[in-house]
Amino acid sequence: MGTVTAPWKQLLLNSLHSNSHLRHSTYFQLATISPNGMPANRTVVFRGFQDETNKILINTDCRTQKIDDLNHWPFAEICWYFTDSWEQFRINGAVDVVDGSNSDPFKLQQREKAWFDSSPKSRLQYLGPNPRTPSLGDQLTQVPSSLDPSSGPVEAFCLLVLDPDQVDYLNLKSNERITFTRKIVNEEISWISEKVNP
Amino acid sequence: MGTVTAPWKQLLLNSLHSNSHLRHSTYFQLATISPNGMPANRTVVFRGFQDETNKILINTDCRTQKIDDLNHWPFAEICWYFTDSWEQFRINGAVDVVDGSNSDPFKLQQREKAWFDSSPKSRLQYLGPNPRTPSLGDQLTQVPSSLDPSSGPVEAFCLLVLDPDQVDYLNLKSNERITFTRKIVNEEISWISEKVNP
Repeated sequence: MGTVTAPWKQLLLNSLHSNSHLRHSTYFQLATISPNGMPANRTVVFRGFQDETNKILINTDCRTQKIDDLNHWPFAEICWYFTDSWEQFRINGAVDVVDGSNSDPFKLQQREKAWFDSSPKSRLQYLGPNPRTPSLGDQLTQVPSSLDPSSGPVEAFCLLVLDPDQVDYLNLKSNERITFTRKIVNEEISWISEKVNP
Repeated sequence: MGTVTAPWKQLLLNSLHSNSHLRHSTYFQLATISPNGMPANRTVVFRGFQDETNKILINTDCRTQKIDDLNHWPFAEICWYFTDSWEQFRINGAVDVVDGSNSDPFKLQQREKAWFDSSPKSRLQYLGPNPRTPSLGDQLTQVPSSLDPSSGPVEAFCLLVLDPDQVDYLNLKSNERITFTRKIVNEEISWISEKVNP
């Protein structure tokens, strides 16, 4: 399927650049739907785009509830607010959950790349106790203090790949809003953009 | 039904206080589910608690998609990340949509209070053109430059009241996580809190 750089991608790269002095500029909120039908929402970290595509990468722990949510209903909406430039991106799309049991060699390779791209400190997290289970106190929940930097992804490490379908851009300084909708015709992707009222 | 101050409320008030130097500390992301089954997520502004309760107030425009979402499925999850103190609150609950057609005099009074509590400038927003419809350019979408400060809420003004049912607190500095679950026994509300693994 043909890939074109989406028109919203440059806007997003500009926002990342103009807010890059803020640690939290790469944090956004990811909304999913729980198997019980309730909306769920949490902060995650942007890990870049997949190669030259428009797909957004997120690292997570296989043992978190978002994995149950996405295995049940594989759609999410990102809400990304840039606190310095007053811009918001709402990015809706399907999410591919790539854990160690994936049968696609390309996807497993992408998961491995994501693992080695993350810091040794953040890799250690995935060796910690089961998230959201009762805390047993410091002695019983100790995480190993180091991990061989050359060893590959551990079982709990999971890569999420969100493929954007719709993007809603809002600029609260200029009071501009633009919606971007993906259209696929004859296996070619194009993006329709429209200026709308904020 | 008896009301007790929820244990998470003091934690939230502390976070608001310690991040109050940041304009965006009162902004959070509200996730809902669209009638087509897709997750939706956007930034909104915290307008305080309803009187002495634990209920969270949000002002919005009746013409936005979140109203369609909530009329269809009245549940939401707030994700509120405090960028200075590195704390996250995930707050899940039912949402009451209070527009001008509401038949409950108390709720209409709360809507009126929310209107007069908001700034004259933010009230003008509700007189603007229909959100998310194609922008017709400056000439045709002009908003009145002033509004009689004593006149009550306009038709498009809507108050949302989120009644928290579950709260998940995460502190990324201390690496602590606490879940709070509401329990109603014999019409009395109590909150169960549990320390869990982050």
